[in-house]
Amino acid sequence: MPVANVAVGPGRRTAQDIEGKGTVRPHILKGFRDYLPAEMLLRQRIIGDFRSLFERHGYEPLDTPAIEYIDTLTGKAGENEKLMYRFMDAGEREVGLRYDLTVPLARVAAMHQNDLPMPFKRYHIAPVWRAEKPQRGRFREFWQCDADVVGSASSLADTEHIAMAVEAMVGLGLPGFRVRVNHRAVLEGIARHAGVPADRAVGVYRSIDKLDKVGRDGVHGSLVESGIDEGAAGRVLDLTSLDGAPDHVLATLRGRMAGDEAVLVALGHLEEIFSAVGAFGVPVARVTLDLSLARGLDYYTGAVFEAVVERPRVGSIAGGGRYDGLIGSMSGQAVPATGISLGLERIIEVVREFELVTVPTTTALTFVAHVPATRSAAIEAATALRAATIPTDLSLLGHRGIGDQLKYASRKGIPLGVIFGKDESDAGEALVRDLATSEQRRVPLDGVVDAVRDMLGRDDGRVDVAAVAAFAE
Amino acid sequence: MPVANVAVGPGRRTAQDIEGKGTVRPHILKGFRDYLPAEMLLRQRIIGDFRSLFERHGYEPLDTPAIEYIDTLTGKAGENEKLMYRFMDAGEREVGLRYDLTVPLARVAAMHQNDLPMPFKRYHIAPVWRAEKPQRGRFREFWQCDADVVGSASSLADTEHIAMAVEAMVGLGLPGFRVRVNHRAVLEGIARHAGVPADRAVGVYRSIDKLDKVGRDGVHGSLVESGIDEGAAGRVLDLTSLDGAPDHVLATLRGRMAGDEAVLVALGHLEEIFSAVGAFGVPVARVTLDLSLARGLDYYTGAVFEAVVERPRVGSIAGGGRYDGLIGSMSGQAVPATGISLGLERIIEVVREFELVTVPTTTALTFVAHVPATRSAAIEAATALRAATIPTDLSLLGHRGIGDQLKYASRKGIPLGVIFGKDESDAGEALVRDLATSEQRRVPLDGVVDAVRDMLGRDDGRVDVAAVAAFAE
Repeated sequence: MPVANVAVGPGRRTAQDIEGKGTVRPHILKGFRDYLPAEMLLRQRIIGDFRSLFERHGYEPLDTPAIEYIDTLTGKAGENEKLMYRFMDAGEREVGLRYDLTVPLARVAAMHQNDLPMPFKRYHIAPVWRAEKPQRGRFREFWQCDADVVGSASSLADTEHIAMAVEAMVGLGLPGFRVRVNHRAVLEGIARHAGVPADRAVGVYRSIDKLDKVGRDGVHGSLVESGIDEGAAGRVLDLTSLDGAPDHVLATLRGRMAGDEAVLVALGHLEEIFSAVGAFGVPVARVTLDLSLARGLDYYTGAVFEAVVERPRVGSIAGGGRYDGLIGSMSGQAVPATGISLGLERIIEVVREFELVTVPTTTALTFVAHVPATRSAAIEAATALRAATIPTDLSLLGHRGIGDQLKYASRKGIPLGVIFGKDESDAGEALVRDLATSEQRRVPLDGVVDAVRDMLGRDDGRVDVAAVAAFAE
Repeated sequence: MPVANVAVGPGRRTAQDIEGKGTVRPHILKGFRDYLPAEMLLRQRIIGDFRSLFERHGYEPLDTPAIEYIDTLTGKAGENEKLMYRFMDAGEREVGLRYDLTVPLARVAAMHQNDLPMPFKRYHIAPVWRAEKPQRGRFREFWQCDADVVGSASSLADTEHIAMAVEAMVGLGLPGFRVRVNHRAVLEGIARHAGVPADRAVGVYRSIDKLDKVGRDGVHGSLVESGIDEGAAGRVLDLTSLDGAPDHVLATLRGRMAGDEAVLVALGHLEEIFSAVGAFGVPVARVTLDLSLARGLDYYTGAVFEAVVERPRVGSIAGGGRYDGLIGSMSGQAVPATGISLGLERIIEVVREFELVTVPTTTALTFVAHVPATRSAAIEAATALRAATIPTDLSLLGHRGIGDQLKYASRKGIPLGVIFGKDESDAGEALVRDLATSEQRRVPLDGVVDAVRDMLGRDDGRVDVAAVAAFAE
């Protein structure tokens, strides 16, 4: 008797629906990605490393909604509006998807300023959305890994963030990275000192930020072209190209801009950063003063930094800085803040390029194969393996031959098979087989867990034994 | 010289902006929540447990975009449309936020059916969004913790999911839970057998699903009121109220509906589930056959189950079932599938009610206090503690007194202080203090890590020593 014509709910999708109405074409939006298991295992590993890094430095986790009121996201200035996914919700409220994790932090800090112990050190690892034109390496949904300190003006916070960026990169074994450091107020001082008109200063910062790429002549040309006079352009370039050890360059700037209080304070912060960073265990040669660096001009107010690698050419892989104005724009009182953002997607590109991290291709370390007559024994063995925290895939192909089942396990990359064939089972035994080498042992039922442990432990070259412990957490 | 009037970018928010233009009122959308650190630490712990549970069973992680094409989300039937956050993106595409994790899985399975090894066992732990009226315990953004098997019709998959639900609850120590199991085709068979007209069947399922709450008379009343004749209503109630051990009830149904092939197949599945669940280590008394259970009527096609607790009254805390129609509606060919969803938000309510899980209130286990003269030594000690994987908060209050700094640490709930006062430092020593008892030790600089380890390890009652290991992963 066919079921579908009798007692079927109106909304349920049955085989009849499929045949009768055609199907929904499965498609994914441009600029968005599915992360299939092998990719996810790598992402989870690196996200886990970053989470561990942040927690080791005493940062606390925070999570906030994906959707915020649009006025929270745009602030007064309305910047970034065109980058945002914005819409009206069912209650006719203007809302949008968060485009970074800093604005939600500012909102939380403003709403909870009396119940959060200050300084508030938080980390936040979560996706953000930008309605950008997708292009290579740029996505409309991507994860940010941020740590921030709210409520401290201390340069120690900025230094700690630089040290954390270095530790993240050293931890992954990234070759050839360096961290460039600058200070917004020093940049402003240079522009003033060179005689750049105040309303032209931001354009000048943008030009000199390209010094690395277009060279001195290129920057000079673009400055003059933008209406800066030759003399001012030359002075800007002389100052931003000062070369040498950070303490030496900072001392030179101190001399040149002796009367400029704002610059002297900023130089003091940079001196503190460079003098303290070594005590954090950072290889100091990796951290350079770069007076041409101009990140986040509509955002940062103090020290700024970014980490770059020589190859692949992915741009900066981490960055951050001090933004003492943002939280006050919501809380009504000035609250200093500084942060770091690890560029997960780009770091993963570098990790792939150099094959820095090895992760298993699947979660299971054992696969339990069985036939109908041995199903109960197989379930019990899988249960025992799982109780021993050994991740175990219990075959759902028990209606097919053992060979087919093991082919499936091999294709998934599971290292060991535990085989409950009819013969072994009659003898009260099972086979434990290395699916790569086909080497196998016949063991009694109560010896399966030990045999698996032993064969996993022995197999150092291919099986990540640490994974066993990690799964057990 | 004030900086803000000279070289300031147009978009930057400065103290002047704050004073001059007023502030953005910080507010959060109704139905959405911020998770502050203490809450997040509990959530992360439980999410970590679930992830570990899924991986231990060989399920692989998957992630998909928050935003999908609206036709993916609504399918042909257009069900759930009013619950959805939907909007036009900047490219005039009709899109929406995912409202569950099953539809994205179906899309992935349809798009990758040739490159994913089948059966595909995946888990997905992520937020979903529903434009529902917010009420106690119902939010517009909440996390789902799902594990599903795509491409297997085996009752072993359904049984494994029931076992995983039980393992999740046993793992957290949830008291008084039970798992109710039923089968959609058995429900349909009961309605047919009782003489319920096909177009009234779904209404009947909805009525009998309330048997637990309104009792036999209540259901009978609502059935008759809805136009079901007295005889049919009585027969439905007789069958759905059958009492006794599952194998006994299933045998009774087999006898009563002997000619109904669809029901006999379904009863066979249920028999397999109840006969196998014990081998998974499940306390069988926790798993009951409940013929009144009617979950996901527009969705499930086979075995269904839900886990409930006696108190607090939060409804079902986990559930799942077989949905053999959904993936075919996208892939064009029928693909069996079955899944489980752990109700994170409700489980957290139960965990809180019974105080089942103890998590630290903050990430740091030590707080390093210092004065300006001891800053370098303090940084070095913090670095050494972190290198030893002991999460360490380096004080950013070095400009204030040691007492103030330790008050901050105590307020955050950090168990130990490592104190670099001027006196100790001159002697090449530091103090390691238990911030709860004020007991302290004076140790040489190179003895700080050992002393901290020792005092954390000794302090079993208050400090979760396992946390140290967990942070190290």
